[in-house]
Amino acid sequence: MHITAIAGGVGGARFVRGLRHHLDTTPGLADSTITVVANTGDDITLFGLRVCPDVDTLLYTLGDGVHEGQGWGRADESHRVQAELAAYGAVPQWFALGDLDIATHVVRSQWLGQGVSLSEVTAHLAARWGLPERRIELLPMTDVPVETHVVVDDGEGSERAIHFQEWWVRHQAAIDARRFVVAGLDRATPAPGVLDAIRRADVVLLPPSNPVVSIGIVLGVPGVRDALRGTNAPVVGVSPLISGRPVRGHADACLAAIGVEQTAQAVAGLYEDFLDGWLVDPADAATTLRRARVEVFDGPLLMSDVEASARIAAHALRLAETGRA
Amino acid sequence: MHITAIAGGVGGARFVRGLRHHLDTTPGLADSTITVVANTGDDITLFGLRVCPDVDTLLYTLGDGVHEGQGWGRADESHRVQAELAAYGAVPQWFALGDLDIATHVVRSQWLGQGVSLSEVTAHLAARWGLPERRIELLPMTDVPVETHVVVDDGEGSERAIHFQEWWVRHQAAIDARRFVVAGLDRATPAPGVLDAIRRADVVLLPPSNPVVSIGIVLGVPGVRDALRGTNAPVVGVSPLISGRPVRGHADACLAAIGVEQTAQAVAGLYEDFLDGWLVDPADAATTLRRARVEVFDGPLLMSDVEASARIAAHALRLAETGRA
Repeated sequence: MHITAIAGGVGGARFVRGLRHHLDTTPGLADSTITVVANTGDDITLFGLRVCPDVDTLLYTLGDGVHEGQGWGRADESHRVQAELAAYGAVPQWFALGDLDIATHVVRSQWLGQGVSLSEVTAHLAARWGLPERRIELLPMTDVPVETHVVVDDGEGSERAIHFQEWWVRHQAAIDARRFVVAGLDRATPAPGVLDAIRRADVVLLPPSNPVVSIGIVLGVPGVRDALRGTNAPVVGVSPLISGRPVRGHADACLAAIGVEQTAQAVAGLYEDFLDGWLVDPADAATTLRRARVEVFDGPLLMSDVEASARIAAHALRLAETGRA
Repeated sequence: MHITAIAGGVGGARFVRGLRHHLDTTPGLADSTITVVANTGDDITLFGLRVCPDVDTLLYTLGDGVHEGQGWGRADESHRVQAELAAYGAVPQWFALGDLDIATHVVRSQWLGQGVSLSEVTAHLAARWGLPERRIELLPMTDVPVETHVVVDDGEGSERAIHFQEWWVRHQAAIDARRFVVAGLDRATPAPGVLDAIRRADVVLLPPSNPVVSIGIVLGVPGVRDALRGTNAPVVGVSPLISGRPVRGHADACLAAIGVEQTAQAVAGLYEDFLDGWLVDPADAATTLRRARVEVFDGPLLMSDVEASARIAAHALRLAETGRA
């Protein structure tokens, strides 16, 4: 079986890790392969280094190198380089870059600077983290630089745009977002393998990633949404909301910015043109969708550890096996 | 009094630190200023980061941040980033880059990438290390990228060129150098302030830096040698050799490569068109020069600590005060 997942950072990574665990521990499924199409819309250049937060979280999580408590960044991390950058007056300092993490950005930036594409760079990085051996292929959604910006009130009656990471990390999404502007998205093309991975999959899964600034950005890459509409594979998603609140992150603020109700039902509505199954938390059991089959997970929809994530992924897979709605 | 010194890395940095100490502890000299013109011919780009070894050694030494035992790099250094780069398969690994040190290269590369000149970047870095407060101005010899390469035997009867750092650090100068090729030197222009610093100085000093690949490279920047010939300031040098052997580094191998005898007298000969005074070790007391006044230092010409360096610098200054030969 080949499964394709469209993922953001922490939620996507934990879901795919759980999915891999489920496959590896289920007779007959261990040789299944997974392609992860990662959001690169929250990429940012800091100190001249190209940082791909969602790709890195996927690499570290799927490669057993992640800081479990944070959900992102490296385990056993230190922060000497960034303290030195601060001593030199280099800004910004609101984005934490650990020493081990910085090496990823240095080597990525070096290779990008040599003309290597982001997908090739990502494949090199994934090799170090052992993803091929785990039968996981990690693809950036596009090789074209895309950056999400957030339009906010400048406090003087006008608007200004700040980088998504400044809004998300520095301001913790506490400033009202008027809208998102995704620089480069209209001219982006799917990275090599992305459309094929969707078209040729046996199952396509949408982890409980942010529907606006993670999965929503991947869907905005020209061709991706059409591939999802056209694939023969069932497409099953896992709700990122429980009773209208995100388990982590700021999906609520993102949904508010695009004028979508903060419910599991409304999020599924963002995918309604291609969604076949939708897994929700017991708190959202009242969810009804016109086209997609809704199932209620047996317990809270929380990826509290690998086993819990595996159970959620297993349920999503079973839902897919029931076929298109 | 204003003193200009032309310096390479460890030897130059220790000499200037001693000079500053001498000035600071001598009545009437504390408000003297020093301009250091640093060799940038051994600069190298590693992992996409611009590394300026001599400038950095000067910054760290004059800013009290150097690893005293090594003479270069940072005190209290760690090497987590480079180990990560190695894990990603990034090469080369023969040049040790510490975590604190890497921050210098990251911020320099970022600023250079934004179009800031190397002299402006160096001034920013020097500010962090407190050089202006110590009345030390640090100038790169040029803002134009210059890189020294070493032509060596390829072992198959032919020649190949390797970067100076590969020869110096990786091979410890143990491969015979046929000649040095300094890419970019012919089109380099002195950085802003360099020629003025030589012309308007009260004294110009040549620390015991490598005469071929440090001071020799600075002298090769078009205009620098003419400025030394034309300045009204006395020019006094300190021999980098004791009985034909360098105190540290591989000046002997460098002199052999350019066909110059490995003696204090022959090194002075490289400067004979502008040199007024030459300070030698007691072991080289027999040195005689046609034009420059030779003096023998009262003890071994070893910069074993700040006080020893200060005594050597003080003698060089006194030699300058005797005026042109």
